[in-house]
Amino acid sequence: MSGSSFGKLFTVTSFGESHGPAIGCVIDGCPPGMELAEADIQAELDRRKPGTSRHVTQRREPDSVEILSGVFEGRTTGHPIALLIRNQDQKSGDYSKIANTFRPGHADYPWWQKYGIRDYRGGGRSSARETAVRVAAGAVAKKWLFERYGIRIRGFMSALGEIEIPFQSWDEVGRNPFFSPNAEILPRLEAYMDQIREERDSIGARIDVQACGVPVGWGEPVFDRLDAEIAYAMMGINAVKGVEVGDGFACVAQRGSVHGDELTPEGFLSNHAGGVLGGVSTGQDIRVRIAIKPTSSIPQNRRSIDLAGEPVEMMTTGRHDPCVGIRATPIAEAMLALVLIDHALRHRAQNADVRCPTPVIPGSVAGGLD
Amino acid sequence: MSGSSFGKLFTVTSFGESHGPAIGCVIDGCPPGMELAEADIQAELDRRKPGTSRHVTQRREPDSVEILSGVFEGRTTGHPIALLIRNQDQKSGDYSKIANTFRPGHADYPWWQKYGIRDYRGGGRSSARETAVRVAAGAVAKKWLFERYGIRIRGFMSALGEIEIPFQSWDEVGRNPFFSPNAEILPRLEAYMDQIREERDSIGARIDVQACGVPVGWGEPVFDRLDAEIAYAMMGINAVKGVEVGDGFACVAQRGSVHGDELTPEGFLSNHAGGVLGGVSTGQDIRVRIAIKPTSSIPQNRRSIDLAGEPVEMMTTGRHDPCVGIRATPIAEAMLALVLIDHALRHRAQNADVRCPTPVIPGSVAGGLD
Amino acid sequence: MSGSSFGKLFTVTSFGESHGPAIGCVIDGCPPGMELAEADIQAELDRRKPGTSRHVTQRREPDSVEILSGVFEGRTTGHPIALLIRNQDQKSGDYSKIANTFRPGHADYPWWQKYGIRDYRGGGRSSARETAVRVAAGAVAKKWLFERYGIRIRGFMSALGEIEIPFQSWDEVGRNPFFSPNAEILPRLEAYMDQIREERDSIGARIDVQACGVPVGWGEPVFDRLDAEIAYAMMGINAVKGVEVGDGFACVAQRGSVHGDELTPEGFLSNHAGGVLGGVSTGQDIRVRIAIKPTSSIPQNRRSIDLAGEPVEMMTTGRHDPCVGIRATPIAEAMLALVLIDHALRHRAQNADVRCPTPVIPGSVAGGLD
Amino acid sequence: MSGSSFGKLFTVTSFGESHGPAIGCVIDGCPPGMELAEADIQAELDRRKPGTSRHVTQRREPDSVEILSGVFEGRTTGHPIALLIRNQDQKSGDYSKIANTFRPGHADYPWWQKYGIRDYRGGGRSSARETAVRVAAGAVAKKWLFERYGIRIRGFMSALGEIEIPFQSWDEVGRNPFFSPNAEILPRLEAYMDQIREERDSIGARIDVQACGVPVGWGEPVFDRLDAEIAYAMMGINAVKGVEVGDGFACVAQRGSVHGDELTPEGFLSNHAGGVLGGVSTGQDIRVRIAIKPTSSIPQNRRSIDLAGEPVEMMTTGRHDPCVGIRATPIAEAMLALVLIDHALRHRAQNADVRCPTPVIPGSVAGGLD
Repeated sequence: MSGSSFGKLFTVTSFGESHGPAIGCVIDGCPPGMELAEADIQAELDRRKPGTSRHVTQRREPDSVEILSGVFEGRTTGHPIALLIRNQDQKSGDYSKIANTFRPGHADYPWWQKYGIRDYRGGGRSSARETAVRVAAGAVAKKWLFERYGIRIRGFMSALGEIEIPFQSWDEVGRNPFFSPNAEILPRLEAYMDQIREERDSIGARIDVQACGVPVGWGEPVFDRLDAEIAYAMMGINAVKGVEVGDGFACVAQRGSVHGDELTPEGFLSNHAGGVLGGVSTGQDIRVRIAIKPTSSIPQNRRSIDLAGEPVEMMTTGRHDPCVGIRATPIAEAMLALVLIDHALRHRAQNADVRCPTPVIPGSVAGGLD
Repeated sequence: MSGSSFGKLFTVTSFGESHGPAIGCVIDGCPPGMELAEADIQAELDRRKPGTSRHVTQRREPDSVEILSGVFEGRTTGHPIALLIRNQDQKSGDYSKIANTFRPGHADYPWWQKYGIRDYRGGGRSSARETAVRVAAGAVAKKWLFERYGIRIRGFMSALGEIEIPFQSWDEVGRNPFFSPNAEILPRLEAYMDQIREERDSIGARIDVQACGVPVGWGEPVFDRLDAEIAYAMMGINAVKGVEVGDGFACVAQRGSVHGDELTPEGFLSNHAGGVLGGVSTGQDIRVRIAIKPTSSIPQNRRSIDLAGEPVEMMTTGRHDPCVGIRATPIAEAMLALVLIDHALRHRAQNADVRCPTPVIPGSVAGGLD
Repeated sequence: MSGSSFGKLFTVTSFGESHGPAIGCVIDGCPPGMELAEADIQAELDRRKPGTSRHVTQRREPDSVEILSGVFEGRTTGHPIALLIRNQDQKSGDYSKIANTFRPGHADYPWWQKYGIRDYRGGGRSSARETAVRVAAGAVAKKWLFERYGIRIRGFMSALGEIEIPFQSWDEVGRNPFFSPNAEILPRLEAYMDQIREERDSIGARIDVQACGVPVGWGEPVFDRLDAEIAYAMMGINAVKGVEVGDGFACVAQRGSVHGDELTPEGFLSNHAGGVLGGVSTGQDIRVRIAIKPTSSIPQNRRSIDLAGEPVEMMTTGRHDPCVGIRATPIAEAMLALVLIDHALRHRAQNADVRCPTPVIPGSVAGGLD
Repeated sequence: MSGSSFGKLFTVTSFGESHGPAIGCVIDGCPPGMELAEADIQAELDRRKPGTSRHVTQRREPDSVEILSGVFEGRTTGHPIALLIRNQDQKSGDYSKIANTFRPGHADYPWWQKYGIRDYRGGGRSSARETAVRVAAGAVAKKWLFERYGIRIRGFMSALGEIEIPFQSWDEVGRNPFFSPNAEILPRLEAYMDQIREERDSIGARIDVQACGVPVGWGEPVFDRLDAEIAYAMMGINAVKGVEVGDGFACVAQRGSVHGDELTPEGFLSNHAGGVLGGVSTGQDIRVRIAIKPTSSIPQNRRSIDLAGEPVEMMTTGRHDPCVGIRATPIAEAMLALVLIDHALRHRAQNADVRCPTPVIPGSVAGGLD
């Protein structure tokens, strides 16, 4: 328990450093009998992988996943599923000069103080590369949630720096490297990123994630609320600094007469809550939004200190995403999937026998985006 | 594990319903030898209690806490500390009419679907009353963090509905029922709340919480990041819909050259990160911000359904806070304390032997608010 | 997490000292909808309570349990069930003389070294009184297991000191204070205990516990095996020094051709395994056996040291059971119930959808004792 | 959480099937800064590996371990340590005939009912091969316990079938394939095993394990007692059916005046407790004993049923140990190490600040075996 496991019943234990032999994870608690092949996982990994456009890091790795256990004759067995991704494009030479300094905005300084030792190659364990593991584990969760309950989990970029990206269509999201749900705005996004790169700077982004088809009743009251665990999952993604569920910070200036979603036999009349009330899913779309900080590694001179505590000037070069948010959508989807599958299992552990006389009301009338 | 425990090493298990015999908790994992008396806990409970001004619920309860175990001759023994608060002002009669309907914006509908049974009296377990338990447990954590490490945890209201509240002084916070750090704005807040009540409506709020004096190195990489667990803790408070650490959603439009906090031998030059990098505390102030939705119970007619799924119109009367955010500051402080003490213990479990050659740099030059 | 919680999905968190205000627990994870009254729990507590015969401690406590939460209109709600037992017969004066010495065979010395503080009154938290809480929590588990699955959990004393007690009938067990399943042997047990008391000594015992009706498939492979968690549960009872499942230590000299239980369509032909194979229940009776050491508190002069490390001679007087094993049967049953309910819930979390084509074979032909 | 993780602070998550691509584990929570190389782990693996004598399975695997993460420049980093052992000698053909039947004494039947799917090749996940992973993880724990606290963990075979093996010397244990601490008895053990094999049968064994140098104060009261977790760890080893701590089942017929270990300023006068009182280590040797059942796979015709529930006769051939106990000693040592390191970390989390005025008394006068 140094915090590398996620989930209580569908538990993902992550391992690996950016420039070590491999990254991977063990999934313990996956229900048996689901068809699962490496290709199912690879498809999600490919959505996140670097090198897909000039706006993301040029590190090129196939990120090929190998299933080491827990699958027999194409089906999950109920035993731990170990996933392995060998590292291949490890130019450690690029990083040796940062061995003795702490990069501003990075984990370097606090991790050094915490452990007294640090794998400085490419950020080691703090590298965004670790998120490939989450995407891989999330792919298993996503598949089960869809096959068992018809749940779909999808995300998109809703803002890139100062640019708000109005939602137009889910179909568009998969067609561009920004995960933008809006085709018209793409030239503006491209130009914006070119400018950021020209300025040798980086920029933040905002991602929206949703889950449709989640049954009413998942989540726990009090501490392990569905939204609380979503917040934990999202804030646990590298570079995330804010999380909203439903209307989020807009609630501060909202009236109760606006915010409280009314119910009718035909469904909820609105979804300000974002699909969670009292920590438990309402059957409406789960709506989550996250803020991602600008990449800390920028090719500008910045002040810092070295291992001896002496002042230095340093410039982080290397192959970095000028906006880490661009590749964050699949990661956020994966984390949402991991939260949901865990609560699916927890729910049926305790409540498998509940037979509620009240009919489940249909999904929100004013629900999702499409 | 229906999610009523918080923390892995300093574990708080909460119990109790609003109108049952009692609420309370068991704290397991408190280090031995700390002086602890009921008065230490009562002081924090009194900061949260209802009935302190005309802007909060008029339910009047002494909220007297009794220590049932884990303290011997005035000191903690290392054994579980059970805290008990008997309920006293339980006018169950007020609530009987809501037994057969689901209040909009409340946990009623999803909880009913989840459990098939529901203690409808005053919201039962979903009542904000449960947060008294968190404040009580947080008081123990706060005391230990202060005595052992000199850590101070404080919060204030930074926005009430549309009104932004500029920070002026910590001293002011304790002098008014709003936890406002600004005395001049008080008449405006009073008038605003009067207007909301007149409109038979409710309103949201924003709370800022900070921890000063947290040593560098607390938190875990990857999933159990300090900020991830803070997000979990905060989103787990009733009515919270958004959480920010450091600059939060402002990061979306920030440049990396602005956001990345530079280091000098004299300290960090800024604190955009909010005291956490790579999931681990930097030694700077921990800065957290939460959005609280407007109270769902308002004296207006609202549409809903009854247990049979039939449409109804209902008005929630009773003694409700028109802004639950007003009493949320002590709760947010308590939750931050619970996260920090847990990570304090986790840190020394794994890293007690680390002797780091690099000097710890002083607190942020541009750190906290005072 | 100082180890006062038991179970992962049906989690019991225990608190309280022998001579503090109260003992009790919080049960988190109980399925909703089960009828539950204080009388259900009291019945089990009464089986364990002191003062029932001259062979057990004369401390007299009604051990009245109060349900503080989690039950509404006579049914469990799915929320934490807090149970409270106030201490009443606390003659602290009896114990003050042991404040400065470490009683041989007791937790005194290692606990003092561990915590640097110790509630010495009656053993404080190390008192057998804490086991009342387990019996109370176990009563809830037992009731659910019986109502939901028809599982019966029963135990008896199979040896008292040198005296082996041949099993005769379950009916007899409840009729004598020894939990002996054999009426003829009672005079011998009485005489034996009288002799032990006369010699100012104490004696060990062996308890057998069984669960009938456990469905096939409960338990987890590898670490959290059903038998591993049973061993954990049993060895966690005060004074237990050995645990066997099935044939236990007799296996050492057994041949594989004898031990391996053969299967037929009519059922297993034997139950050497004790109802668990590969960590998972087979559908046969679960058979467990535990060894209980002699009471450490005896009215003889014994050598020890005091808080300053100086040698002392001490005699433990007070109201002690000369054989703690006599009252251990209900505790062992309770712990077995807690293990089983936890695995019942874990099983359905992961495997609720499994539809196995092979018919479940009937209970062992040569199964239980009756 | 399907039970494949062991330990709360030093957490080992195991994966892999006997005839899949690999077995391995992730260790989360290892303190940073310890020197660690694959050779350190390999040395322990080699003690357990098959093919070392004619008395154990002839499956030949190098069992080469690869460290995938968590070690940098020869030292642990505090991040997860992933260990990988590729399977090589996988003659799946040997096992195909058992795909449709349930081997008596094996996990086959209950696992099939539990999961509805089963990797039948060589027992899949239920194979003793999984224990190699425990030995590997235990090697890391052992190294840390020795380097940090000087703790030595050692085991030996104390009985093989009907043959009691009197302890003579630790030095002898490593010199023979039985882990016998007695050289003179070896010819008898050899002849006995030859006879068992000739009878086409198998036999049980008893293993003793000890830890010397464990500081006083490790373990938790009530549920997570040191001895309770030892029992959990040991009963979680394949084929173990009984666990004793200290005098174990001999306590049943012991007097309190014999059992209770007296203390003097020079140390305890005996160690009947086995180094644990009240769930916490006393500073004496930890003494544990386990019973291991005879191998279930024997080359005799045995009755069973097939997947359709029809009766069959089956003979388990293949390369099986006629006494699984022979290779169990390193596994039991590993599990004891895993329990101890977990409690070492838990102890310092809660009690790092305890300064106890009483001197720690020296190790037991009548302590260990040498």
